[in-house]
Amino acid sequence: MNPPLIERTPSAYAYPLLIKQLLHTPLATAPDQEIVYRGQVRHTYRDLATRIGRLANALAGQGIAPGSTVAMMDWDSHRYLECFFAVPMMGAVLQTVNIRLSPEQILYTLNHARADVVIVNAEFLPVFEAIRSQLETVKTALFISDDGQPVPPGFAGEYEALLAAAAPDYDFPDFDENARATTFYTTGTTGLPKGVYFSHRQLVLHTLAVGLGLAAAPRQGSLHRDDVYMPLTPMFHVHAWGLPYIATLLGVKQVYPGRYVPATILQLVEQEQVTFSHCVPTILHMLLLAPEGKAIDLSRWKLIIGGSAMTAGLARQARERGIDVFTGYGMSETCPILTLAQIDDADLGEADLPLRTKTGRPVPLVNLMTADGELNPTPRDGKSVGEVVARTPWLTQGYLHNPASSETLWAGGWLHTQDIGHIDARGYLQVTDRIKDVIKTGGEWISSLELEDLIARHPAVGEVAVIGVPDEKWGERPLALVVLRAGQSLDADALRTHLKGYADQGVISRYGVPERIVFVSELAKTSVGKLNKRALREQYAAG
Amino acid sequence: MNPPLIERTPSAYAYPLLIKQLLHTPLATAPDQEIVYRGQVRHTYRDLATRIGRLANALAGQGIAPGSTVAMMDWDSHRYLECFFAVPMMGAVLQTVNIRLSPEQILYTLNHARADVVIVNAEFLPVFEAIRSQLETVKTALFISDDGQPVPPGFAGEYEALLAAAAPDYDFPDFDENARATTFYTTGTTGLPKGVYFSHRQLVLHTLAVGLGLAAAPRQGSLHRDDVYMPLTPMFHVHAWGLPYIATLLGVKQVYPGRYVPATILQLVEQEQVTFSHCVPTILHMLLLAPEGKAIDLSRWKLIIGGSAMTAGLARQARERGIDVFTGYGMSETCPILTLAQIDDADLGEADLPLRTKTGRPVPLVNLMTADGELNPTPRDGKSVGEVVARTPWLTQGYLHNPASSETLWAGGWLHTQDIGHIDARGYLQVTDRIKDVIKTGGEWISSLELEDLIARHPAVGEVAVIGVPDEKWGERPLALVVLRAGQSLDADALRTHLKGYADQGVISRYGVPERIVFVSELAKTSVGKLNKRALREQYAAG
Repeated sequence: MNPPLIERTPSAYAYPLLIKQLLHTPLATAPDQEIVYRGQVRHTYRDLATRIGRLANALAGQGIAPGSTVAMMDWDSHRYLECFFAVPMMGAVLQTVNIRLSPEQILYTLNHARADVVIVNAEFLPVFEAIRSQLETVKTALFISDDGQPVPPGFAGEYEALLAAAAPDYDFPDFDENARATTFYTTGTTGLPKGVYFSHRQLVLHTLAVGLGLAAAPRQGSLHRDDVYMPLTPMFHVHAWGLPYIATLLGVKQVYPGRYVPATILQLVEQEQVTFSHCVPTILHMLLLAPEGKAIDLSRWKLIIGGSAMTAGLARQARERGIDVFTGYGMSETCPILTLAQIDDADLGEADLPLRTKTGRPVPLVNLMTADGELNPTPRDGKSVGEVVARTPWLTQGYLHNPASSETLWAGGWLHTQDIGHIDARGYLQVTDRIKDVIKTGGEWISSLELEDLIARHPAVGEVAVIGVPDEKWGERPLALVVLRAGQSLDADALRTHLKGYADQGVISRYGVPERIVFVSELAKTSVGKLNKRALREQYAAG
Repeated sequence: MNPPLIERTPSAYAYPLLIKQLLHTPLATAPDQEIVYRGQVRHTYRDLATRIGRLANALAGQGIAPGSTVAMMDWDSHRYLECFFAVPMMGAVLQTVNIRLSPEQILYTLNHARADVVIVNAEFLPVFEAIRSQLETVKTALFISDDGQPVPPGFAGEYEALLAAAAPDYDFPDFDENARATTFYTTGTTGLPKGVYFSHRQLVLHTLAVGLGLAAAPRQGSLHRDDVYMPLTPMFHVHAWGLPYIATLLGVKQVYPGRYVPATILQLVEQEQVTFSHCVPTILHMLLLAPEGKAIDLSRWKLIIGGSAMTAGLARQARERGIDVFTGYGMSETCPILTLAQIDDADLGEADLPLRTKTGRPVPLVNLMTADGELNPTPRDGKSVGEVVARTPWLTQGYLHNPASSETLWAGGWLHTQDIGHIDARGYLQVTDRIKDVIKTGGEWISSLELEDLIARHPAVGEVAVIGVPDEKWGERPLALVVLRAGQSLDADALRTHLKGYADQGVISRYGVPERIVFVSELAKTSVGKLNKRALREQYAAG
């Protein structure tokens, strides 16, 4: 017997989770709140609503309809925010073009996503012109210029002029909340970029749940209605981690910096009283080094760090400036936010540094665990490692037009992050490795990075690579490939003794000590000089 | 052409919005957080999870399965919280029995909801025994006693004993998020109680959006992770306004007071450091008057007032004790919260009192307007009145097994609250009247309560009733029925002159002055002495 369903909703009562529904509250409660672009252009939320309507009419005039795709090539701007809303609200799909890709890759993504219209900032004109003749589906290009540059030939019009000429009212329709809203291409290290895509329902639920995760913090790591928000991860990259949607729903003041120039960013933080941002470690590092920032008070700034791990050193430098830094974790495929390492008041102080650099605690609705190969959770003891797998309502269900790749993402009802880590009793996840760097042996996990580090500590060792090779009994066993320093000699037994010393101290498990150690004269490298473990695995897999 | 849907989700990827999903985050991040009952029983969230599993197994042992209904008769308790989760998580429906109804009405609701199991607190044993023989669907009764009272004959067991005997693990299934989770009967002033019901999807979205509305406040009116929550509107009444679900999702400390006894409540506030509650004005009034409370520091207490309007006087008294009081608005049919009158920092001070007693600003996802008879929004100018209509994802779609009543609730895709009010430029709604007390004339609204107040100010008037009567030209016109004070005389023209004086001052509109004024010797009353406007309308409708 099944639970009784609520009588099927007649359309009159239905309230699908659509992006347009995020606008009701801010327009009612904060219509005069500001949206600032580079400190120069100032709009209100009331203007935002009007401009969304005008943009929709302008796009409709260019043939955009439900099912069309509009590609955006711009730096972070009020215009991008308008596209975040207007395009999906029409029932069309917004492609946020990853302008960090090569021109060839951008061409590939525009063709692969079947873009109908491209909106191009003047700064990207050279790239666009270079690929234009090979675009297969684009019918119209629109132009953006911040400094009144004339519209080049072949463009249907300029963004501001088109908005000015369009009517402000647009009757945004209701439709299925599972309709695709956005698409974005990841920068895979191997192969072609892959498109991830999210529905209206997914974006609305990410907005509510991540918004709640941020707002529920009383002070550190919180986003409240009196904050001032500025993105520092690009809007083309997974919707700037979804924060523009959250900021809009809360009706907070928003600041869009255009291109990321340290001096400009720091000036905006000061001038517009920015209190909440998010960025990758590199940007934070740049800002802390910038001479323009030395005199600026950053002590009211809350900053999510993500994209790659924040080192303790960087966290310390940020704390010395008073910045409330904390880690956020996720990936393109997860919309992206899964965890946040906000600091509780009780943890404040010198001891909070290790917590700030942890991977974080799950936000509402995120069901996350570290699991063994049979999808059994590993103990939440802060040391038992497993693969990080997750379930939430906002996980991409696969890659666009690419079912083969999609299958590897999901198994057993969980999204597999390919990250290895452990969880402690307070829910803090710590990611330690990528799964490809881990060796699974007898149901246990061995970190190849950790083994390499320990082997390299032997004075005779010049270079080392540890890979997993198939083993009939244990599934996989570690194999160490060692290049000796010039003039040094060492045998396998001596190196094992070196490692057993670490095992006796509890640094590694006894079963982590490899039986097979092979001395070689050189190790395969990639074109950029990194260890080519894939080639090494292929070479040594047979034993 | 329709927007492209995300490929239909295979069940492995699906993440339905089910009540069980609210538990992931608190169990991961706050497993040792406390849930306190009357200061005597203390559990952790870890215990909560175990007890939910045990309760489900115990109920399954009594034949409860997906589609069954479990009725709860208890004061606010940790047990009730366990039922909030375990029963719907099984796919069954939780009926929160309104113990303020008469025994006959309780009987009616248990039969109407087709309850299978009833859980009865010893305090309600007399009521239950009185109606027991007339229960049509109840197969099993379970007993609750706080003081070890023996299980009476005819009960299948005692709550704690059943839990102790049951296994802690229960595999809660996935199912359609539109499955009914809870049902509750309103105390209609006329006719039989009506059942409202909510789905898992509705409760999860109410939890996320109202939670976000509360958490997004930086200070006043906020619910954050460091708060301590205690309900003071009963858990049987629209899930204590949904706050237990929100508190659980945020992993905050929770305090359940049992029966509402002022001395006990105040002691719990002090002893458990309660910082967040919600209640009707009567309870607040009681607590402020209680001698036990005079010495207790209430200055960290945030308090939503709802159910009926908070007077300026009550708000002032609460502020004098330092309580952060503010209005919340909704009704059983709206799950219930639609608006909250949280105070911004900039509004703090003497001037904040009128804002605290306003009806409030919409929480996220609430699309709310005041509308004229054609569902056109009235201007947001803080004075143009219209009926309050709303759309949100958590509005009941009708009354249980009562399609006829359901139809009056919805019209044109909006839920009609039957309240009249206006909205200002900052989004503050102010409800001024119930629609039945308003007269619609020529597309405008006249408040009968306001007219009665002005007429009663004439020294010759003893009693007055204003009703709307049909009018061919204007739709409806006001008719004033006046009883003169003994020994006084007055004619209609003189009374109209009195009213025109107010119209000249802008207090009422000129079209609000009634043409028809009838002097009568007495006015029809109800059994409790209130004006019986229904009878008056029937009597005078024909003119």
